[in-house]
Amino acid sequence: MYGYWGKLLRINLTDQRYTVDDIAQETFRKFIGGAALGAKILLEETAPQVDPLSPDNKLIFAVGPLQGISFPGNGKWSVITKSPITKTFLDSAGTGHWAPYFKKAGYDLMVIEGKAKTPVYLFVHDDGVEFKDAAQLWGKDTVATSELIKAELGDKRINALNIGPAGEIMNPVACITCDGHSFAGRGGAGAVMGSKNLKAIAAWGTKEVPVKDPAKAAELTKELFKLIHEAAKDFTAHGTPVVMQPFEEIGDSPIKYWRGDVWKKGAALIGAPRYSEFLKVKPLPCINCPIGCHRHINYEFSSGEKLVGNGPEYETLGMMGSNLMVDDLPAICKANDLCNRAGVDTVSVGSFIGFLMECYESGWLSDVQTEGRPLRWGDGEALIELTKDIIKLEGLGKLFQTGIRGAAAEIGHEAEKIIVECKGLDFPAHDPRAVFGLGVNYATSTIGACHERGNPQASALGLFYPELDMEAPPDRFSVKDAGYSAYVYQTTSALYNNLTLCKFMVNAGGLTLTEISAGLEAITGWNIEPKEMFKTAERGYTLQRLINVRDGFRRKDDQLPAKMGVAALVGGRAGKTPMPHHEEILNDYYAYRGWDNDGVPKAEKLRELGLDEYLKYLPE
Amino acid sequence: MYGYWGKLLRINLTDQRYTVDDIAQETFRKFIGGAALGAKILLEETAPQVDPLSPDNKLIFAVGPLQGISFPGNGKWSVITKSPITKTFLDSAGTGHWAPYFKKAGYDLMVIEGKAKTPVYLFVHDDGVEFKDAAQLWGKDTVATSELIKAELGDKRINALNIGPAGEIMNPVACITCDGHSFAGRGGAGAVMGSKNLKAIAAWGTKEVPVKDPAKAAELTKELFKLIHEAAKDFTAHGTPVVMQPFEEIGDSPIKYWRGDVWKKGAALIGAPRYSEFLKVKPLPCINCPIGCHRHINYEFSSGEKLVGNGPEYETLGMMGSNLMVDDLPAICKANDLCNRAGVDTVSVGSFIGFLMECYESGWLSDVQTEGRPLRWGDGEALIELTKDIIKLEGLGKLFQTGIRGAAAEIGHEAEKIIVECKGLDFPAHDPRAVFGLGVNYATSTIGACHERGNPQASALGLFYPELDMEAPPDRFSVKDAGYSAYVYQTTSALYNNLTLCKFMVNAGGLTLTEISAGLEAITGWNIEPKEMFKTAERGYTLQRLINVRDGFRRKDDQLPAKMGVAALVGGRAGKTPMPHHEEILNDYYAYRGWDNDGVPKAEKLRELGLDEYLKYLPE
Repeated sequence: MYGYWGKLLRINLTDQRYTVDDIAQETFRKFIGGAALGAKILLEETAPQVDPLSPDNKLIFAVGPLQGISFPGNGKWSVITKSPITKTFLDSAGTGHWAPYFKKAGYDLMVIEGKAKTPVYLFVHDDGVEFKDAAQLWGKDTVATSELIKAELGDKRINALNIGPAGEIMNPVACITCDGHSFAGRGGAGAVMGSKNLKAIAAWGTKEVPVKDPAKAAELTKELFKLIHEAAKDFTAHGTPVVMQPFEEIGDSPIKYWRGDVWKKGAALIGAPRYSEFLKVKPLPCINCPIGCHRHINYEFSSGEKLVGNGPEYETLGMMGSNLMVDDLPAICKANDLCNRAGVDTVSVGSFIGFLMECYESGWLSDVQTEGRPLRWGDGEALIELTKDIIKLEGLGKLFQTGIRGAAAEIGHEAEKIIVECKGLDFPAHDPRAVFGLGVNYATSTIGACHERGNPQASALGLFYPELDMEAPPDRFSVKDAGYSAYVYQTTSALYNNLTLCKFMVNAGGLTLTEISAGLEAITGWNIEPKEMFKTAERGYTLQRLINVRDGFRRKDDQLPAKMGVAALVGGRAGKTPMPHHEEILNDYYAYRGWDNDGVPKAEKLRELGLDEYLKYLPE
Repeated sequence: MYGYWGKLLRINLTDQRYTVDDIAQETFRKFIGGAALGAKILLEETAPQVDPLSPDNKLIFAVGPLQGISFPGNGKWSVITKSPITKTFLDSAGTGHWAPYFKKAGYDLMVIEGKAKTPVYLFVHDDGVEFKDAAQLWGKDTVATSELIKAELGDKRINALNIGPAGEIMNPVACITCDGHSFAGRGGAGAVMGSKNLKAIAAWGTKEVPVKDPAKAAELTKELFKLIHEAAKDFTAHGTPVVMQPFEEIGDSPIKYWRGDVWKKGAALIGAPRYSEFLKVKPLPCINCPIGCHRHINYEFSSGEKLVGNGPEYETLGMMGSNLMVDDLPAICKANDLCNRAGVDTVSVGSFIGFLMECYESGWLSDVQTEGRPLRWGDGEALIELTKDIIKLEGLGKLFQTGIRGAAAEIGHEAEKIIVECKGLDFPAHDPRAVFGLGVNYATSTIGACHERGNPQASALGLFYPELDMEAPPDRFSVKDAGYSAYVYQTTSALYNNLTLCKFMVNAGGLTLTEISAGLEAITGWNIEPKEMFKTAERGYTLQRLINVRDGFRRKDDQLPAKMGVAALVGGRAGKTPMPHHEEILNDYYAYRGWDNDGVPKAEKLRELGLDEYLKYLPE
C-alpha cells in the first residue's frame, strides 16, 4: 500500500553483504517504529548478556512513520543496541540532517551485524548499500569525517552519522554524531560502532515517501510549524541554555557533583541571556524544525583560537558548568567542542570530571594519579585537560574504561558511595530531589539514568497530558504522584522515540498528542487516539524491560544513589528528597507498569498489551 | 590563714581608681575560683542585657587556687564578661606567662569597670596598680605591644595581656592575647577591652604564694610533671596539629564550612607530622607546662618573608585549613599570624571565611561586594586577603560587625540557613555529627558553640572519668549517652576553667580528678573529692546559665544549625547525625542539669547546690 514502507535493511559487516526484508505494517502499527522496533529486534535476535563490544552485538538504526516528509521535528533517528556501560538495552536518539535521506533511500530500520576486518563506512542510497574503505577516515574527528565523506561522495548534501576517535578506541561513553551538532549521546553506542570497525553511515535517498492524505498532511504541517514556532520563540532565541537559570532556581540543575544546593550567579553567567550575547549565537536548526534549539556560536579566545560552530546545550552547561562550578563559559565551549569532535557524551564526561574533582577534594587521588595537577571545582582549565584525558582514556581518563562504576572501584576508598548513576549510567543534568518523578524514572529507566527516556522534569515547567486524563502537571514534590508521573512521562518519551519525533515539539512547542495523532493519520492512514498511542509505547517499553530482565536486572537495580538521600538546606528543593519513600514510589510505579514486586513484567500485562508471543522471555 | 589569698582588685577606668576587697575563703571553696567567680560577679553586678561594648559592662579576670606556685598546667587565666557576639555570658581563657605574676602581685580576681577617656594600660604589681598612658601603643599589634611595654617597664620578664588593632576597633571577634601565642580567643573579650580604651594589663608580682603543705605539693608536682610529660610525648613533639589526621579520620574536623565529609590528603598535608617537619617546629611552652603544645615555627616564603614565632593550632588548621579546603600550610600560617598580631579569634575568622566562600559559590555575593575577586575553596591567597578584611572590618569584613548572624542577615538570599553557630558564636573545629555529645554541648553552652566549654570530642580519643562513675568513654554516636556526656564534659571543663588549669593536662597528659583533688588539698588544705569538685563546677555553671536566662535565652536558643542535620555519605561519621534526636537529647541533658523543660534552672536544683541566695534571679 505505501510503496517501500516497512523495510528492514540488514547489513553484515563481517562478510560485507546486506539484505532487505519487509516488516508487516501490523508490526509498525502495534509498536509505531523507532526505538520500540529496535527493542523488538534486539530482544529476538541477540543472546542474553551478549558482550556489547563483540561482533555478536547488533547495532540498530530506526526511523519512525513520520519520517521522510515535512512534519515538525521529525528529523530524528534512534540507535538501539546493548550498551558497553550498562551491558543491557540502550536506545539513544540524534537528529541533524540524516534520517529523512535514510528513509528516502527506502528504509525504516537498519540492523548492523558482525565486524568489519578493517575500518569501513557505509553509503546507503536509492540503489542499495556500498561498503567503503574508511582507512583514510580512521583517527579523524567527527567534523572532519563528515567533510571528508561529503568530498569523497561528491555531494555536500550527503550527511553521514559517524564516530570520532573516542568511538574508535571503544571509549564506553562514545556517541554517534550527525552534522557535528546532534548526537545520540548516552550509553556508548559510538563504542559499539567502533567495535565493529564502522566509522560512518552516509545516507542519500531521493525516493518520494508515500503519504495517505497529502493535502491534509501538508495543511496540518503548515499549521503546526506556525504554532510551534510561535510557542517556542524563547527556545529559538536562546536554545536550551534558556532553561539554565530556571532549572537552577527550582533546584533541578546538578551542582558540585550533586553535593551543592544553589549556584545562582554561576547559572546567570553561563545560561541565557548571557550565553546568547557572549557567544554571538545563531540558531542551528535540524531538518524540519520550527524551533532550531541548537546554537551556532562564534567566540575568539585571547590566544586567537576561534570556536565557531556548535555550542554547548543545557545538558552540557549543567554537567560541565554547574556540576563542576565552572562559570568560565569559553572553557565549557572548548570542552564541549573537544567532546563533539572526539565523539563522546558530554553528560558522562561532565559527570566523570565532577566525580574526579570530588575524589580530589576528598584526598582520594594520589599525586601520581593527578600528576601533581590540582583538580579544583570551578577550574575551567582542569575541565579542558580532564576532558582530553577522558576522551583518550589516558591519564586519569584510564579509570573510565568501563564507566563510572569501574572508576570508583579502581579509586577505592569510599568512592563507590559518591557516584551518581543508575545501572552504571551517569545522571544527566536534572536532579530527582527537585522533581520526585525523576527519581523513579532514572531508577527504572531501561537504559539507566536518562532525562530523555522519561522527562518528568518538563512537568516542572508546565508539561502535562490532558489527553491521558491528567488534569495538571503533577506536584513535583508529591510522593503520591511520583510513580504515576514517571510512568506517564517515561511512556510518552518512549512514544516520541518510536515516532522518532523531537520532544521539544511537545515540551517547548506545545504540540499535543491529539495533533500528533492527526499527523500520523494524515501520513499513514492509521487512526490511533492518544490513549492508544500511549499503549503502543507501553508495548515497546515492556520489550525493553524484558531485555533488562533477561540480563539479570531486577528491583535491586532500580535504586537511587546515596546522594539523592541528602536534602538541600537552601534553594528550590530545600528539605526535599524522594529517597525515604523510594520503595513505596517503586511499588506504585510497578503497579502502573504491570510489573511484579521484583520489577518483572507480569504475564497478564503482556497479554493485555497483546504481547503473548513474548511470554517466553519471562523468567521462570 | 593564707595571707593575701582571696583578694579582689576592682579597677574603675573612668576615674582611674582601684580598690581591693577580700573574698571569703568559703566563697572560693564553694565555687573554686576562675570562671565561676567571674560569673558570680557578672550576675550580681551587671544589669540584664547590658550593652557589652558600653562602660556598664564589666571585664573580669580571674585565676584559680592552684595559681602562683608550681603545678602542672596552672598558668591559665580566665576573662569573664558580656560578649558582643552573643550579648550574654562569656568566659574565655588564655595562658602564656602572666597569671602567676598577677597572683603573686596579690590578687585572685580583677573587675574592670567604666571606660578610660583615652587609651591606657594597667600595670599591676606588688604595690598596687598604675594607670599608664597607652597613646603610643594604640594601633600597635599584639607582639609589638608586648615588646613596647617590656621596654617601657624596663623588664623583659613582664608580660602584658593586650589587645591588637582589632580589639581597638571593637571587632566583635577580637581576642585578648598573652605572649603572642596564647589567646582568650572566643566571643570577643578583646572588643570589650577595646571599648574601655584599655590596651593592656601588665602584671609583675613577686610575693610568695602561701601553700598549705609545701613538701607534699612539691612532691606531687614533681611526680605529676613527670607523668604528664611521659603521657603527652606526642603532644610535645607535634602539638595540637597531631590531632588533625585522627580528627579528620573520625569525621570531627570541619570540612568546607560543614558541607564536606572527608579531606584525607589535605589533613595529611597540614597536620602532623608534615606540619612539624615543614615548619621546623619547636615547642613553645606556657609557664609551668610539662607538655608545651604551642608551636614555634620557622618558615621562609619564596619572597624572603619570614614567619618565625607562633604557629597555628589544631583549631586554626581546622577552621582555616579543612574548613576552607586550604592545604597551603604557609598561607594558613600567614593568616594565623595576621590574626594573632591583630588580636582576633582564628576560629571565628575561619568560620567567616568559610561562610563567605559558600556564599560566593552559591552566587549570593555581588561583584561589587567581592570587588571582582574569586573566593574559591582551597585558595590560600583568598584566605589571607579575607583575613585582612575581616580584621579591619573593611571590604567584605564590614559584614561581620556584629558577627556571623549579622553578616548572614545583610547578605540575604538564604544565607541565614547556612551559618553554623549557636547563640551567634561560630562552631569551633569539632563536628557534633562525629560526637553526638558535642551537639547538645554546643547548643547549651553558656557562651555559645565552644569545644573548650565542654569537650565531649576528647571522649572520642579516650577521655573519661572513672571517679564520676563513668565506666568507659561514651559511644560517640549514642543518642542515649549524648545528654549525659555533654553534662559531664561540660561540667568538668567548667571545673578546669574555675581552677584555671589547662585541660590538656587531663586530655593529653592523663591527669586525673583524684590527682587534681590531691594537689588542691596540698596547696589549699581543702579536702574536696572528685564528685564534690564536680558539684562546685555545677554551681558556677548554674550561675552562668542564670545569666543566659536573665538575658532571655531559653530552649529555643539551645538549638543546632540546619547543617548538622545532614549526614555524611562517607568518612568517619557517615550516616550519622544527632539532629533528629536533638529534642530528646536536650530533655535528657536538662534533666541531668536540673533545668526545667524550657532550660531554666529549677529552684530545687539551686537549693540542692546551696545556691538559695540566687533564687531571686529565676524568672517569675
